[in-house]
Amino acid sequence: MEIKDIAEAGLLQRLFPFCVAGTVGDDGALLTIPPGQSLIVTTDVLVDGVHFSDRTTSAADVGWRAAAANLSDLAAMGARPLGITVGLSLPPTTKVAWVEELYSGIKCCLQQYQTGIVGGDVCRSPVISVAITALGTVDPAQAIRRDRARPNSAILVTGYHGKSRAGLELLLHPEAGQGLSAIERQDLIISHQRPKPRLDVLPLLEQLQPAWIAGMDSSDGLLDAITQICGASGVGAEIDRQLLPISPSLQAYQLDPLDWIMAGGEDFELVLCLPQNTAQMLMKQLGNGSAIVGYTTEATEIWLTNGNDDKLPLASNYQSFQHF
Amino acid sequence: MEIKDIAEAGLLQRLFPFCVAGTVGDDGALLTIPPGQSLIVTTDVLVDGVHFSDRTTSAADVGWRAAAANLSDLAAMGARPLGITVGLSLPPTTKVAWVEELYSGIKCCLQQYQTGIVGGDVCRSPVISVAITALGTVDPAQAIRRDRARPNSAILVTGYHGKSRAGLELLLHPEAGQGLSAIERQDLIISHQRPKPRLDVLPLLEQLQPAWIAGMDSSDGLLDAITQICGASGVGAEIDRQLLPISPSLQAYQLDPLDWIMAGGEDFELVLCLPQNTAQMLMKQLGNGSAIVGYTTEATEIWLTNGNDDKLPLASNYQSFQHF
Repeated sequence: MEIKDIAEAGLLQRLFPFCVAGTVGDDGALLTIPPGQSLIVTTDVLVDGVHFSDRTTSAADVGWRAAAANLSDLAAMGARPLGITVGLSLPPTTKVAWVEELYSGIKCCLQQYQTGIVGGDVCRSPVISVAITALGTVDPAQAIRRDRARPNSAILVTGYHGKSRAGLELLLHPEAGQGLSAIERQDLIISHQRPKPRLDVLPLLEQLQPAWIAGMDSSDGLLDAITQICGASGVGAEIDRQLLPISPSLQAYQLDPLDWIMAGGEDFELVLCLPQNTAQMLMKQLGNGSAIVGYTTEATEIWLTNGNDDKLPLASNYQSFQHF
Repeated sequence: MEIKDIAEAGLLQRLFPFCVAGTVGDDGALLTIPPGQSLIVTTDVLVDGVHFSDRTTSAADVGWRAAAANLSDLAAMGARPLGITVGLSLPPTTKVAWVEELYSGIKCCLQQYQTGIVGGDVCRSPVISVAITALGTVDPAQAIRRDRARPNSAILVTGYHGKSRAGLELLLHPEAGQGLSAIERQDLIISHQRPKPRLDVLPLLEQLQPAWIAGMDSSDGLLDAITQICGASGVGAEIDRQLLPISPSLQAYQLDPLDWIMAGGEDFELVLCLPQNTAQMLMKQLGNGSAIVGYTTEATEIWLTNGNDDKLPLASNYQSFQHF
């Protein structure tokens, strides 16, 4: 059964059950903001053949990843999710089952974080695309911005990098990674298909109350995040190659995965700049994969060091993900 | 110059000046909600070749219409605009000038209503599409919903219907409407290209404080709005054909424009159900084009009457706009 067989009304009827009760059916959704909280809003568009493909991603995974990417942007701002809207463009020949699977993937991800779909739009298009806007709330004094990093901040990553990219490679080339155990292979693939937005970091930050904080998520790669934060804050950075955490699965796949760690992208971890002592405490609480990988500097260059002798300029060695 | 010549960074640099200062450049925008207000969120996706075409719509008009459609959804909920996000999908061969014109059209419309662009995303796609999410604030006690119409409410339209559809016809067939004056022709075309969201109705409603109110906008046609409100509220309606206001320009174009008035779509007026006396006062304040066109009934059918003798079932005579 295809979308054209059930028309818009039939499609909406099937999608309403995936939405939060009482939010759809009007021209807009009405949402309550807790007193003292500000609103955070963020938007992402995913296009078939550009951001996902049938080859590597089921409809449910497309949905999960789209939801996770947007929740990750909320986490990166220090915000708790309030709900998302889904603007869906579909060729009339799209299978109804595909759309239902997409929505179940979105809903499944959102439910892990106690939030849901609060509105949307469906329309005809020659290509499938999913435009998600996520809404969240934050105490404005605790919002995380990119431009607040001070020199001599610790640069902390909340988890491993490079795993999503490795998982994509395994999906594209199933014959690769012969040395991997089934569990290692699955660990990398799941990292790509079902990334976890790091909303769990927020309550820890709230307890630790860092004297200052800057940060963003690493959706476009770890190096991109460091570059963006440094650029916005007017600082530089030294990243110690030996401090970059490498997940055991990734290490089993590739002996020297530095490229994927720095520029693989889509790991959806947080990259935070905060005082050294707070960073140490946060790192201990986060455990596995979290690490302080370097520090910010007054000089605005970004260097990759190797222990303490070699020193390479980082930015020029990698190209961050370009959307065009 | 095309998008692929300036890449994502170059494109973003050109689009930032169209956005509200201080809202872009982070993973999300931080917006302040006035105390006691709830949030309204609404989403629309427009696709090239489906919702607009170069033949009838310049990039600036596409932008204006996309912004206006979303602001109209806010007005339909009784909400004041807080800002919009724009998720833009573009083929790499899209002209940079086209995109800048699109954004200037969006900004121009938003400025009329003291609001702006507060975030977005750009990405590559085989087809141009514009996904807009509008955010607004409303006193929850004054939100306008579809499901609150009571029997014997007046059904009020805030302005003329059918003009946008007539304007579209004139753009598609410039040889049509020979009997129109230049001013009449322009009036109809502008109704299509630069529709006005009826945010101006909200302060009037606030003063009048109707004992009850239900409503929505007429973006998918007047009949569709009446049908949706009646369906959601469990009431019926009698619409008096002789009470439907016909704009002088539309009348000059077509002697009997009933079809376009009922189902033309995209006039972005509000259709409100409220007590008779409040409706009378509102109609007087709104002036030209506003009218009480009928009333709701306990019986759930929707009839078109002709003065008081003829009575035709309305819903079955028209097909509302289908997105697939």
